[in-house]
Amino acid sequence: MSKINVGLIGLGTVGGGVLKVLKDNPDICIKKIAVRDINKKRDIDGLDTSILTNDPFSIVQDSDIDVVVEVMGGVNPALDLLESAVRNGKHVVTANKELLAKHGEELFKLANEKNVVILYEAAIAGGIPIIMPIKTTLAGNKIKKIAAILNGTTNYILTKMEESDVSYEEVLKEAQQLGYAEADPTGDVEGFDSAYKITTLATIALNQRVDINKVYREGITKISADDMKFAQELGYKIKLIALAEVNENNETDVRVHPMLVPETNILSTIHDVTNAVLVEGFPVGKVVFAGPGAGEMPTASSVVGDILAIQQNISAPEPLPMMRCHHKVNANQLNIADTTNKYYISLTAVNSPGVIGTIGEICGKHKINLSSVLQKGANSRENTAKIVIITESSKESNIQNAFSELNGNANIVKVNNLIRVME
Amino acid sequence: MSKINVGLIGLGTVGGGVLKVLKDNPDICIKKIAVRDINKKRDIDGLDTSILTNDPFSIVQDSDIDVVVEVMGGVNPALDLLESAVRNGKHVVTANKELLAKHGEELFKLANEKNVVILYEAAIAGGIPIIMPIKTTLAGNKIKKIAAILNGTTNYILTKMEESDVSYEEVLKEAQQLGYAEADPTGDVEGFDSAYKITTLATIALNQRVDINKVYREGITKISADDMKFAQELGYKIKLIALAEVNENNETDVRVHPMLVPETNILSTIHDVTNAVLVEGFPVGKVVFAGPGAGEMPTASSVVGDILAIQQNISAPEPLPMMRCHHKVNANQLNIADTTNKYYISLTAVNSPGVIGTIGEICGKHKINLSSVLQKGANSRENTAKIVIITESSKESNIQNAFSELNGNANIVKVNNLIRVME
Repeated sequence: MSKINVGLIGLGTVGGGVLKVLKDNPDICIKKIAVRDINKKRDIDGLDTSILTNDPFSIVQDSDIDVVVEVMGGVNPALDLLESAVRNGKHVVTANKELLAKHGEELFKLANEKNVVILYEAAIAGGIPIIMPIKTTLAGNKIKKIAAILNGTTNYILTKMEESDVSYEEVLKEAQQLGYAEADPTGDVEGFDSAYKITTLATIALNQRVDINKVYREGITKISADDMKFAQELGYKIKLIALAEVNENNETDVRVHPMLVPETNILSTIHDVTNAVLVEGFPVGKVVFAGPGAGEMPTASSVVGDILAIQQNISAPEPLPMMRCHHKVNANQLNIADTTNKYYISLTAVNSPGVIGTIGEICGKHKINLSSVLQKGANSRENTAKIVIITESSKESNIQNAFSELNGNANIVKVNNLIRVME
Repeated sequence: MSKINVGLIGLGTVGGGVLKVLKDNPDICIKKIAVRDINKKRDIDGLDTSILTNDPFSIVQDSDIDVVVEVMGGVNPALDLLESAVRNGKHVVTANKELLAKHGEELFKLANEKNVVILYEAAIAGGIPIIMPIKTTLAGNKIKKIAAILNGTTNYILTKMEESDVSYEEVLKEAQQLGYAEADPTGDVEGFDSAYKITTLATIALNQRVDINKVYREGITKISADDMKFAQELGYKIKLIALAEVNENNETDVRVHPMLVPETNILSTIHDVTNAVLVEGFPVGKVVFAGPGAGEMPTASSVVGDILAIQQNISAPEPLPMMRCHHKVNANQLNIADTTNKYYISLTAVNSPGVIGTIGEICGKHKINLSSVLQKGANSRENTAKIVIITESSKESNIQNAFSELNGNANIVKVNNLIRVME
């Protein structure tokens, strides 16, 4: 088997893990490592500091290097670096979900022209094998739908809210103290991270170029302790779900938002920082992949798997089709307003006998059928009651119109939340 | 991409599915199909009956055929056919778990000599991608343990027993009527099917030749409605688990038997005919693969995935390492008597104040610590009581000795069951 030289860009959590896993591999030589500060103290067993450089461009230009492994993250300068690596005929392994979501297509196109491959198993769901199974075992399938939990931080927060009946804010604070959430949690809790991942995953699974700018995104910050409790009473768990689906009209629906997931669905059983990807296709039916979606060693597992795949293939005259990423078709992406969903609506209303009738009337006017309406406790001092509705499948634009009309109605104090429901 | 010719041996459920999936694929030509009876009426859309033959050897000898797909099952004549196919330089795709478990090693060795590959994704867990992820994304891991539900029939029976509190015999009858269990259910309910699958899966995952003759096997026929109920009260589900593990002394432990699985373990949430494989390795940690373990279309999905992988690789001078199966080391397989487990023991005892003391004494004498002892209802007419014990980790041989002594004690009417408990 060929021995290969690897240049590593980035020596943070994931880079350190990759180094640990590869240190005894006789066929893979880490020739250079680009870091920001060469003199920083690093607690990495057996690290040869003579291979460190603070010039990442020296790696992508090094003619001895066969594979560039990028684990620095962010768009700049990662995009320039990887473009340059590909132009110089190097294969690339990257864990950079933001870069792939925003610039994947141009990088993949360039890689095809240059007859090299870009592998990115670690960028989607950490240690969970998902890209390679889609490209190999599931290659004979037409994948129709993916529903996934792709962000560990938000799943941890939602799990703790579910277990302890406390507010989002309190759990976030605790997660930050434990290191499960960052000081600025926006990327996770507002769904950016999941949106990056589902954009690239949908592109490979549906075999269409998905545009991140058309991916609807909504985070978990509005989920209340009440929502958690009501959802559980109705037989659901609330999860931040990344969805990708192609309908019969070949319209593609890719989005990220919280959902009420029925307790009978395996995604409802995925707790804490665990990730999971449910793939639905023909002929396979439904398959689920679950495991650690982040972390030093799980992410290193996927990066190393990609490096080994390239190593096996490196002496071939050209990359195997299963290693390539070529998507000829642009997805015809649905606007969220044109999608159809079941909804959970939580309201605070004036506690009067006619109020449920009023709600039913407004919903009916907007062609929304109600599947259940529950009054959840009254506040006698304020003369209000909380009401929870689950609708039948309804068009999002109708729901949004009903939402406005409900919010403006004299008998409705406030529409507290609107959460989509998984069927 | 190269166009390839496939010879299909067997046109039952799986063969029919493969044909349906491949019928519009321009690169894969099904050139011949071997069946038992050429004149049998078949309800397969667009089947060209002129390619049917009742001589499977004409397929493995056909110089135009690149890949032999064997979906007939059983050892004879499948072994002769595949040996002959490999000797004639053909790649092989097979769904034959019994053949692989019993004769995999000789076939793999021959395939390596002949520079062809034998792929068998469909033989382990139907539509669930498990072999290819182990060979690719997880290739950098040292896999330490696999715990899996690999048989849909038994998982269906156990799920129904759990839901409906009825006996094994009643549920089996219902499963037979629904077509989920065969008229002779032995292969499934006695664990043979799971044992075949874990033997081949352990061989690839642990990278050691596992001998099916040293795989301990115990089925589900002794599980009673009481066991189901007691397990649930204690926070467990009963599942038929296929295990494979390597310990620190490099001893390999491969076995199939029912287990009490804690409700916090994802395997406890796998219902009905669904299969699941939990893989534990370094650096990845724990990953789970779940989905349909059998059936026409899911199994066809895996067979077709393997055919496509071969097609992509067919013009290469030699197969990629990830496509090969070469295991140089024989596993040092542990005898079940030398394994260590927690146990559930269900007893019927004389309802006297001293009986729990007697049980504790006998267990203590055999170095078994008890984690809980519960009296589950007394029968005043017969003056007996049911007692359920969960032990701490104990050596199997000690448990078997205690079992004999308990069964011979005057105060113990009967030891009803002994089931291992997953930690």
